[in-house]
Amino acid sequence: MIANISPLAPSYTPELPAIDGITLRTVCAGYKNWQRNDLSLFLFQPNTVVAGLTTQSACPSPEVEWCRAAIKKGKARALVVNAGNSNAFTGHKGREAVAAITARVADHLKCALHEVFVSSTGVIGVPLPIKTACDGLEKAFSAEDVNWEHMANAIMTTDTFAKMSRQDITIQGKSVKMVGIIKGSGMIAPDMATMLGYIFTDAAVAPELLQKMLTKANKKSFSCITVDSDTSTSDTVLAFATAAAGNPILSSEEDKDADKLQEAVTAICLDLAQQVVRDGEGASKFISVSVNGAVSDESAHIIAMSIANSPLVKTAMAGEDANWGRVVMAVGKAGQPAERDLLSIRFGGIEVAAKGMVVPNYDEAPVAAHLKGKEIDISVDIGLGKGQAQVWTCDLTHGYISINADYRS
Amino acid sequence: MIANISPLAPSYTPELPAIDGITLRTVCAGYKNWQRNDLSLFLFQPNTVVAGLTTQSACPSPEVEWCRAAIKKGKARALVVNAGNSNAFTGHKGREAVAAITARVADHLKCALHEVFVSSTGVIGVPLPIKTACDGLEKAFSAEDVNWEHMANAIMTTDTFAKMSRQDITIQGKSVKMVGIIKGSGMIAPDMATMLGYIFTDAAVAPELLQKMLTKANKKSFSCITVDSDTSTSDTVLAFATAAAGNPILSSEEDKDADKLQEAVTAICLDLAQQVVRDGEGASKFISVSVNGAVSDESAHIIAMSIANSPLVKTAMAGEDANWGRVVMAVGKAGQPAERDLLSIRFGGIEVAAKGMVVPNYDEAPVAAHLKGKEIDISVDIGLGKGQAQVWTCDLTHGYISINADYRS
Repeated sequence: MIANISPLAPSYTPELPAIDGITLRTVCAGYKNWQRNDLSLFLFQPNTVVAGLTTQSACPSPEVEWCRAAIKKGKARALVVNAGNSNAFTGHKGREAVAAITARVADHLKCALHEVFVSSTGVIGVPLPIKTACDGLEKAFSAEDVNWEHMANAIMTTDTFAKMSRQDITIQGKSVKMVGIIKGSGMIAPDMATMLGYIFTDAAVAPELLQKMLTKANKKSFSCITVDSDTSTSDTVLAFATAAAGNPILSSEEDKDADKLQEAVTAICLDLAQQVVRDGEGASKFISVSVNGAVSDESAHIIAMSIANSPLVKTAMAGEDANWGRVVMAVGKAGQPAERDLLSIRFGGIEVAAKGMVVPNYDEAPVAAHLKGKEIDISVDIGLGKGQAQVWTCDLTHGYISINADYRS
Repeated sequence: MIANISPLAPSYTPELPAIDGITLRTVCAGYKNWQRNDLSLFLFQPNTVVAGLTTQSACPSPEVEWCRAAIKKGKARALVVNAGNSNAFTGHKGREAVAAITARVADHLKCALHEVFVSSTGVIGVPLPIKTACDGLEKAFSAEDVNWEHMANAIMTTDTFAKMSRQDITIQGKSVKMVGIIKGSGMIAPDMATMLGYIFTDAAVAPELLQKMLTKANKKSFSCITVDSDTSTSDTVLAFATAAAGNPILSSEEDKDADKLQEAVTAICLDLAQQVVRDGEGASKFISVSVNGAVSDESAHIIAMSIANSPLVKTAMAGEDANWGRVVMAVGKAGQPAERDLLSIRFGGIEVAAKGMVVPNYDEAPVAAHLKGKEIDISVDIGLGKGQAQVWTCDLTHGYISINADYRS
């Protein structure tokens, strides 16, 4: 499938620095009949720690099951990412493929099995071919080192652009680098465009603290985006820290500069999450939905996601239509405390509805101009309390239908 | 807006009998600049009882607020349905319009205010014009009687066909008639295509029992359909019973033949609900989703709705694609107990995935033929328990996007 680059792709691509303790390799294993790298191998120096989050799906891929268990051990020496075959819903054969990959890498590195992480993305229902994977690994073991951009490209499936982010911080006087790459653009079957995100840093940090920071960052980033409300069976975010920066190891949120590491993790997660939305299938608008005045932050989040997931709101934005009535509808159906006569709604900062009624004679010109742009702000004040939340989504267009309905598996 | 009749419209339209104790009138009040009936007046003989259900929305229309309160009194002498203006999100002006209509009708009939019911459907954010409504009522008071088909047409907004249903039963030796009409096809702004459904019978039944029966029927009908997961601010279902059939009044589920009345109410609600799905915006397939083997009926219902609301499942059906992977995804994201390796999935009765894997070499020809039809069956066995549920939806097509995004309010 040849897709045009999303019109919402960032105009600027950051240059990503090498990170001490991490070696990057990518090769063409040949999961499909194509000439592109589709097996990526990230090698980490000993004592690298890992934290991670996986899909809540009750039907996860064997890779997700493997990672869920291995994350608990907190240590990592390698990550293998396969593109072109998700290995999801493949029963015992899928589990055997994961076992073969981890065994081969652990044997090569002389490390424990649980220090090897695996993700796969692509067609579902077809067991990952073990020989293809193992032959690919052999090639990767002796391949030349590459840079982050090669890796960001090699993990893509239906993505229309490579997604990368960086943060630079100082922890107790030591320069610390952080890099993130991610793939995902909604879900396209048979290439279920699973979201796979990876964060790499040379910070020295205890795995328990890194896990805590990633979990906190997730609440403000990956948990706040939606393309089509559907959840992949393989979504995974992993964070690796090599300790090569040489800062005194951080083990508590109270440690000096731990707040800086938290901020960097949150910032990189948010940037990566928003890039996924910007590559949403068929997206022509990047939409921010802010809710304040709810009874709690949780309530605000539920209302914001109700708006962001509403097909009617998303099609209205595609149509550049200041349809506040659909926003009222989405607030009303969220099942959260709300009072029609206290609600107010803004598009691009301009109040169009307030206190249960349209704002009489509001100036339509700036609203229309705002909706013609690529970046849309919808803001809702519930008027009941102090709870607030912000989430991001894209519009729902003919492009989404074409990608998902006009395709035959 | 001129729309073609939905390809899923029933080929057969039932003839609906007059019901003793009910008089039907419809006129052109002129809520829009059009030549069609848009104000419908249903007159009920004294002692007619009423039961009803309204949207769960926290931002309901003033009509819904009025009906919620009046239903509790249990008696009805009139129902007014306005088409072309939903009066939703119109603040105090909207409430004044409802007050004016109920006052005018109550004065005319010399009945209590709470015996007059009002629904409105159409553009939102514009207060229903009181003079237009009251002039329309004057016309209706002296208009000629019409039949059910006229009424079913007069309450339509963006519907592409009039929706009617009938049931005939015998209660303790007396013939009892039941008629239902409904409008709704998803939500189109500014014409939010609210679902308004009305059931009429000459049965003699206590309002508390009728309410109980309607609530029970709702769980198996209106609660089991979804077009686009969005919920209107005005959805209302009302049931009126005139007692003209002369059967001994039913007041308990234990009464002789009360089960027959329950069955008729459930059957008519289900038929009406399915007709709404068949008029879903842009729909080209009518989809039944059955789930069994869940840990409870409630769990099965949540899983079935997760499948029925999934944009990826709905676009796959539009594309006639046997994409069981998307069904797995929708089961997985439902947040209900499920075991990947116990799941099985059927399209049109043919098992395509079982025990966590695709069924090797399943016969694709009959599956492909089934998916080319207009009536699609998706069946999922969770394999954990005895819970079951069935829900109905339609596919997600370019037509839906065209209706909702290509439109400017």
